[in-house]
Parts: sequence; structure tokens; C-alpha cells
Amino acid sequence: MSRLLAASVTLPTSTIPIFRTVASLREWRRKAYLEQKSVGFVATMGALHDGHISLLKHSLSRNDLTVLSIFVNPAQFAPTEDLSTYPRTLEADLALLEQTKVPEPSTESERITSAIFMPTVHDMYPSGITQDVSGQKGTFIEVKGYGHQMEGGSRPGFFRGVATVVTKLFNAVEPTDTYFGQKDIQQGLLLRRMCRDLLLSHPEPGHLHIMPTVRSPVDGLALSSRNAYLSPNDRKHASSLYATLNVCKDAWRDLRDKNLAIEKALAYLKERSSAAEADGVLIKPDYIHMNDPDTFEDVQTYEEGKAVILSGAMWVGKTRLIDNIILGNAEGILG
Amino acid sequence: MSRLLAASVTLPTSTIPIFRTVASLREWRRKAYLEQKSVGFVATMGALHDGHISLLKHSLSRNDLTVLSIFVNPAQFAPTEDLSTYPRTLEADLALLEQTKVPEPSTESERITSAIFMPTVHDMYPSGITQDVSGQKGTFIEVKGYGHQMEGGSRPGFFRGVATVVTKLFNAVEPTDTYFGQKDIQQGLLLRRMCRDLLLSHPEPGHLHIMPTVRSPVDGLALSSRNAYLSPNDRKHASSLYATLNVCKDAWRDLRDKNLAIEKALAYLKERSSAAEADGVLIKPDYIHMNDPDTFEDVQTYEEGKAVILSGAMWVGKTRLIDNIILGNAEGILG
Repeated sequence: MSRLLAASVTLPTSTIPIFRTVASLREWRRKAYLEQKSVGFVATMGALHDGHISLLKHSLSRNDLTVLSIFVNPAQFAPTEDLSTYPRTLEADLALLEQTKVPEPSTESERITSAIFMPTVHDMYPSGITQDVSGQKGTFIEVKGYGHQMEGGSRPGFFRGVATVVTKLFNAVEPTDTYFGQKDIQQGLLLRRMCRDLLLSHPEPGHLHIMPTVRSPVDGLALSSRNAYLSPNDRKHASSLYATLNVCKDAWRDLRDKNLAIEKALAYLKERSSAAEADGVLIKPDYIHMNDPDTFEDVQTYEEGKAVILSGAMWVGKTRLIDNIILGNAEGILG
Repeated sequence: MSRLLAASVTLPTSTIPIFRTVASLREWRRKAYLEQKSVGFVATMGALHDGHISLLKHSLSRNDLTVLSIFVNPAQFAPTEDLSTYPRTLEADLALLEQTKVPEPSTESERITSAIFMPTVHDMYPSGITQDVSGQKGTFIEVKGYGHQMEGGSRPGFFRGVATVVTKLFNAVEPTDTYFGQKDIQQGLLLRRMCRDLLLSHPEPGHLHIMPTVRSPVDGLALSSRNAYLSPNDRKHASSLYATLNVCKDAWRDLRDKNLAIEKALAYLKERSSAAEADGVLIKPDYIHMNDPDTFEDVQTYEEGKAVILSGAMWVGKTRLIDNIILGNAEGILG
């Protein structure tokens, strides 16, 4: 499947224009400028699910035009991680994009994705790219002080890869507005800070929107491309992460003590793990953290209404899942 | 003098508009877009001299509008370096800018700098800035593999500070074309690579121009704001760096052996140092290097016509000077 990402390969047909080079996308973008049309942008690594489609619909309904990118970014995978097995489902992705429409305001017609940007690795990394950070050459972006906690603590180098590729995508697309999912809350907040620090105008930091996580209506599992790794048995127990975060949330509200709340949550997860084990599914917690949404520092003390990011990661068999809940006032974070 | 950089201070009067915030500059820039005017850009740290003015004239004659920025960037000075004493000569700078004009093509009128951008440290570093790299927070840009040789070898962290501030300046100004001096050849080439890697369109990498070093007509000393540090006696001996590079250039051509050429150059510099010492001036070489302009790797073997950057740094008393000559074919590097 990874051959699909080579430059010369024949793509599945799509009624939505697919741009494979930065130069061709720029030409399209120039026209949008001349016509003074707003351009929404959703960055993805493909393997689209309803979480992506929700972001896309937000963009479609709020912008004249919408670009969606599909690019599996090597720089955000550690050498030990799942770059080679990351799900690639291009035909299904294109079919899903063709079906995704929203009503055009004050007309009878509908809006659909205007452009799919699917650059090659060479176009995105003109100086080349290797997953081994120590061997990398070329330009990289680091958001210091905001990338070593939570997910960054478990995945060193991850946010460096994300910040670098998203800067390039922003420079190629020059979006008016852009939409990221709450499931990757640290990513969204870190990128918003990056836009501010780099004085980006496309998008301006306030135009980077973080939209609520889309969940399974059955058990609340956060949608993720990596859910495709779960066996049917894994899937049965995957929602225990979200349930654990909810236990922690209630305990935090009731006990107002972080250590006790996390202790209670971990005790709950242990019960769920035993049940899973009986099903032959191995569950292993990675972390549960409570962090300040501005500084990403560990939150220690309860403050009524104050926003706190309660986040967690765990392994279900060989699949690593993440999730989070915003406690307190989420204003200024989501939307 | 450094109080001049505080946001609230009263600036010397200038007939050229001075923009102190990114927001106000952006408003000006938007008008230029609407009028489809090209915008040239010269980034400076002030203390303007004929080298800057030469860059400015290139920009004025090739663009409809020209922005010049004055910003002493804390992030490119190590804690041990000369941030606090770096020359600040704002009144003289503004006077010089008002005097600098080029003929407007096909008219009788003249072009002058359109806008001076003088942002505050807070505007440029919204997450704050400290010179101690380990304590820095916020977004930083590194051009890996191209910043540890030559100047980067002597000044770790220097190019990280340069790449970071120039990205911000580019994002604020969105120049069509930009002009840097050959004296800082590694900086110019590294920034050109950064534009390419980050997929910048303002400027595109090919629109980052590196223009020939302006030298004293008397003894060839490269113009530099730091020349202001030189005592009259220092000044008499400062041109020995350029002379040493020329000795190296001739020896490279004649002997075609790098080690012998550098040996010969250092022997020459030693003679010059003895003469200086008799004048009470202490000269100390920092480095002489010969590097490939694409990879910045050390060049070992002579190849007829092949471009090589011959660069050097030396101390004259307490002042550190740098200079370089391009050997072979400079096409694709300068201009």
C-alpha cells in the first residue's frame, strides 16, 4: 500500500481535484486569493473516519473552499513506531470525501471538499528525511517547553515532527482557518502556540480550531485511525480508557485531590484489565495526567471551574490509544 | 540607548513610516497585496553602514516597495556575547534611510524605503525569550546539518537564533524578495535552504538574494556594524583578515592543497600579528575554513572552477571579525 505514496503511481479516480505538488496547489490557492475566498484546511494522515469527517464538515460549513491533506508524516514516527503499518486506505478515503457534503448557505446547492493535497515525501522534505532524529538534515521546528509532557513524555520527538510538517502544510495551503481534533489536544494547543510564536497569518492562532472528540455512540471510544489495529476482542475492552478518565474526573470533582483521583482511576482500570485478561486481552496503562492547558504543567490543586486537561494513554494488546477530557471551563480551548 | 527599544518610547521623527507592531505592518502589507505591488525586504539589527545601504538600494531598484527592519535579536547572541553593547544608532540610521534613494524606472521620481519595521522583543517573542538556550520556551527553528560548521562551529546556537527570527520577520513582512549580505554567507545560504525546506512562498528560496560584500575602498575591510568597536589602532590592522584570505586564495590556486594553503595563510597572518603587536594590538585567529556551498562540508581537494567558500574569523583586541571569499564559480550563490 505504501507504493500509493510514490510520486509516479496512478491514483484512484476522484471527482475532487487531487494536487500532488506544492506548485500546483499554490496555483489553485492563488486563484482563491484573487476571488477573495476563505480557505479552510484539515490536515490528515488518511485512514479517514468520522472524526476527520466531523472536522471536514466544520470547515466546509464555515469556509468558501476547503482543502484536506493526506500525508503520512515520517518525521513524527520514532524508528520503533508504526510508520510502515500505519493504515493506508486511499480508495475508501476518496470515496468518503466524495460523499461528504454540507448545504451551501443561502443557496440550494451543496459544498464539497475543493481540493485534496497529497504531496510526496520529497516535496515535503526537500533536504530528505530519516526517522532517526540524530541523522536528520534540514529545517525542523521545536516548540520548547510545551512538547515534553503528556504525549510528548511518552513519544520524544513526536511534536517536533508534528510542528515541522504542519508548518510546511500551512505554508503550502495558506489556510484562513484550520481544524484539529480534541483527541490530540496537546497537538492542537501546541500548534496554536506555534502559530502565535512564528507570527503566522495563515492561519492566525485564533483561527486554529480544536473541535470536540468524536466517540463511538455505543461505548464512548474516541475515534482514531489506529483503532483499525484492534482485534474484535481488543475492541470490546478499548473503551476502558475513556471510562477510566471519567472515573478520574468524578473523583477529582468529589475528592479534589489529584493523587487520590488518579489512584482511584488506576484501581478502576485494574478491574477492567482483569476482565480483559479473562478475554485474552492485555491492557497496560501508559499514563494518566492532569495538566494546565496554557503551560502544560502538572496541575496539583483543585480550583473551581479552572480548565484542566485530563489525559491518558494505554496499550490494548499491541495498540496504543490516547484520549482526554477537559475538566472545568473549556472556553478558549475548544471551538 | 537600549531604552530606545522599549515599546512606549518616543522615536526620533522620520518621514518614512515606522511600524512598531506586527498588526500595523500587516495592514500596510495587505494594501500592497491589493495594489499587486512587489515588496522587497532587508532585515537588519540597525547600526546601518554602506553594506546595509547597498542591500537597500538593490531592493529599492528591483521592487515597487521596500521594507527595512531594525531588530536586535536576543536569540542569536550567546549569554557571553555582545548583546548589551551591540551598537544602537537609531537617529543616524533613520537619517541614512531618509537619504537613500534610487531612481524610479521610467519616471522622473525617486524611490525611498516605504516602511521601517521596528518590532518590540515581546512582539517577536510572544512566549518570552532568554539568551540561555536551555531555559528557552516557545517555538525555535533549527536547520540541522548546516549550522555547526564555520560560524556555527564558533557560535553554537547562533544560526538557531537567526533562523527563528528571520522566519518570524518573513511571516510578518511576507516579502516578494529579500536581500542578505555575502559577509554572512553561511547565514544567507542556510536561510535559503530554510525557505526551501519550509515551503515558504514569501520569499520563495530563489528570491532570497545574497549580494557581494561591501568593503573599505582603502584596505578592503568588510563593512560590519561591529567595526564600530575597533579603536583607531585596531582599525589599522583589521584588514589583515581579508588579506589573509587572499593569501589563502592564491595559495589554493597555485598549490591546490588545502592544508598547505591554510598553513601559508596562517604564516602570513602571524607576520601581520607581529606588526600589530608592535602597535599594541592583539590579533588572534579563530578559524580559516574551506567549505562546499551546498553541504557546508569541508572541501579537501581542488576541482577546477568548483565553488568553494573560503571563510575566516579573527579577533582584533576584543572585537571579533568575519569575512569570506567565494573561490571558483559563484553562480547560483550570489545575486
